[in-house]
Amino acid sequence: MTATNETIENLTQWEYLALNSELNVADGHARQALTDGQTKIVDQLPQLFAEGEQRPVELIEREAHQAYFTLLGQHGYPTAPGRVLSCYSSSVAMEILSRALAGSVDTVALVHPTFDNIADLLRGNGLRLVPVEEEPLHHEDLPDSLLTEVGCVFVTTPNNPTGTVLAEERLRRIAEQCAEHDVVLALDTSFRGFDPRAHYDHYAVLEASGCRWVVIEDTGKLWPTLDLKAGLLVFSERVGLPVEKIYSDILLGVSPLILALIREFSLDAAAGGLADLHEFIAGNRALVRAKLAGLPGVECPDPDSRSSVERVRFSERIGVEVWNELQRHNVYALPCEKFHWDDPTEGQHMIRIALARSAGPLAASVDVLRSVLEAR
Amino acid sequence: MTATNETIENLTQWEYLALNSELNVADGHARQALTDGQTKIVDQLPQLFAEGEQRPVELIEREAHQAYFTLLGQHGYPTAPGRVLSCYSSSVAMEILSRALAGSVDTVALVHPTFDNIADLLRGNGLRLVPVEEEPLHHEDLPDSLLTEVGCVFVTTPNNPTGTVLAEERLRRIAEQCAEHDVVLALDTSFRGFDPRAHYDHYAVLEASGCRWVVIEDTGKLWPTLDLKAGLLVFSERVGLPVEKIYSDILLGVSPLILALIREFSLDAAAGGLADLHEFIAGNRALVRAKLAGLPGVECPDPDSRSSVERVRFSERIGVEVWNELQRHNVYALPCEKFHWDDPTEGQHMIRIALARSAGPLAASVDVLRSVLEAR
Repeated sequence: MTATNETIENLTQWEYLALNSELNVADGHARQALTDGQTKIVDQLPQLFAEGEQRPVELIEREAHQAYFTLLGQHGYPTAPGRVLSCYSSSVAMEILSRALAGSVDTVALVHPTFDNIADLLRGNGLRLVPVEEEPLHHEDLPDSLLTEVGCVFVTTPNNPTGTVLAEERLRRIAEQCAEHDVVLALDTSFRGFDPRAHYDHYAVLEASGCRWVVIEDTGKLWPTLDLKAGLLVFSERVGLPVEKIYSDILLGVSPLILALIREFSLDAAAGGLADLHEFIAGNRALVRAKLAGLPGVECPDPDSRSSVERVRFSERIGVEVWNELQRHNVYALPCEKFHWDDPTEGQHMIRIALARSAGPLAASVDVLRSVLEAR
Repeated sequence: MTATNETIENLTQWEYLALNSELNVADGHARQALTDGQTKIVDQLPQLFAEGEQRPVELIEREAHQAYFTLLGQHGYPTAPGRVLSCYSSSVAMEILSRALAGSVDTVALVHPTFDNIADLLRGNGLRLVPVEEEPLHHEDLPDSLLTEVGCVFVTTPNNPTGTVLAEERLRRIAEQCAEHDVVLALDTSFRGFDPRAHYDHYAVLEASGCRWVVIEDTGKLWPTLDLKAGLLVFSERVGLPVEKIYSDILLGVSPLILALIREFSLDAAAGGLADLHEFIAGNRALVRAKLAGLPGVECPDPDSRSSVERVRFSERIGVEVWNELQRHNVYALPCEKFHWDDPTEGQHMIRIALARSAGPLAASVDVLRSVLEAR
């Protein structure tokens, strides 16, 4: 990409600039070293390839879905054909959903802040957005006036970058309200693997409400599979949106090798790997917080987050300016303005740091951050 | 997917029905057995994974582009950053292009027939289409009236399913006409690897014309990599379309493992594998033609095609009805109506057979086809 920090239009373009640096703490992709269990799977890639040649893709796909959903405590996922569409990524699933919504919906209520490509894909497909702040979303009923104005409510849970999880009771109530107003409820749960509080059976709650619903899952955030991943587009019966048609305009399916890899990584995670991953992320979070402790005006504003990203707020500095000083030392983080897609100034004093990194480069990056923040 | 042959909306949904059959001659993906050279690459997947962990993705991507373009005789490809965008697939590239066009273009002139998802992705993004028949396209100037009506001319070359290649002289003239009318010229060259007549330097011709141009390349048709592939979205300077922004809304990049695989398969092809592949496809084409020879009213209407698909026309039968009888024997081909996106009746008496299959299942499939066509 040709973006420079002068012409950047979105968070992903900030992330491109980091891609070739050893001190890349920008994007939310998993870039830590493989565990021993995962290394064994990667060593089996030729055998998994042979399996992909020999067995029907339908079977491998079904096993991958089952292993992944079971890992997340998502036991009630739909098993009927065509109810879980495997996409190249969660963003491809998001593009399909956005275009499917655009045929019958004008306006979408979207959580604020959240990763900006959700807002950009919805708007890029002609949809108008209304922001829903996290605070009321997690504590109060949605206003009736909002639910009569919009055709879809879209919530990222756990949210990116805040890590806030939509509690089961809140999901139930929002789904009931959406059912009442015949509004589609859409969830992006890409980061749920990191947070056991998000491992309740979302689909059971959604089904019980009777609302029309869509969920985008993402296998791509958890494991360092070099971006071999799938986004899963899951939806209710009678969702009333042409998701299958648009899906079939864009893809025939995901590689059986990738599906087999997702199955194997899921099984390894279920056998203890996920608990190890949670411990690893918690350790990296503690490392970041310890290294920044005691700096005046500097804080981590998401104390409860268990997600694989951590925000750092500094009252006296501007995120883009800190980014500039960091990159002079070859460290790449993510300025937070654009998460606040409706009001970028709200994110002005923050950067986001990726925690799914090996501890060495993460520690080196945060050391540079501390020295940059201390310098004034 | 839930599509049945009663509710099918596009060619890809026909292809889903074939996915789990051993006699799948429906989709244009490469499903033949690996050659010895390719097997050696697959055996190296763990080493390629390690390379993807250790080397900057930018380097691997550059090597993949260079190896692939060189293989196709496409020596003049753009090397400046951001001029070749690696996508998950050619259809993802097509979705990005379609949405990028929709901001400033109302109407697109599209070759007829061609694979229907090109038409559907353009129309799905709100663009109006005007058909351009193959016959005049390859022999006459485009009418001025057409070029004042449209904002983009879109040509698939070699075309799918006909195999017709846009000759260098014709590309030069069409590009000049597009330059004159400031119309974007877009090419889908997904099948060019199969046909040396399409291995001239398209980008040099396009650049010389001064027109605004976009080309979609596809590594996914040539080799049986289990759909580990990339679509390449290549475009001129000052193309005047927000392709980079929409790309960055959808992806950060393609897996370095896939890029390394493309590099290795390209190098193997350049070292003799491509000539072997051409021979293999020619052999399969000869096999299909020989097995169907002498059937009254049955012919292969694309005598010059070197593409990895072959059409079969039968004057007395309907494609969907032949499809139905084939699938009773577990053979899955592709009825051709929907290639004729502007006039499906033109494709009514044809099916398309995929040639990128091992000779055994292909021969068994065509034997069934012959018996079905003989039965009346």
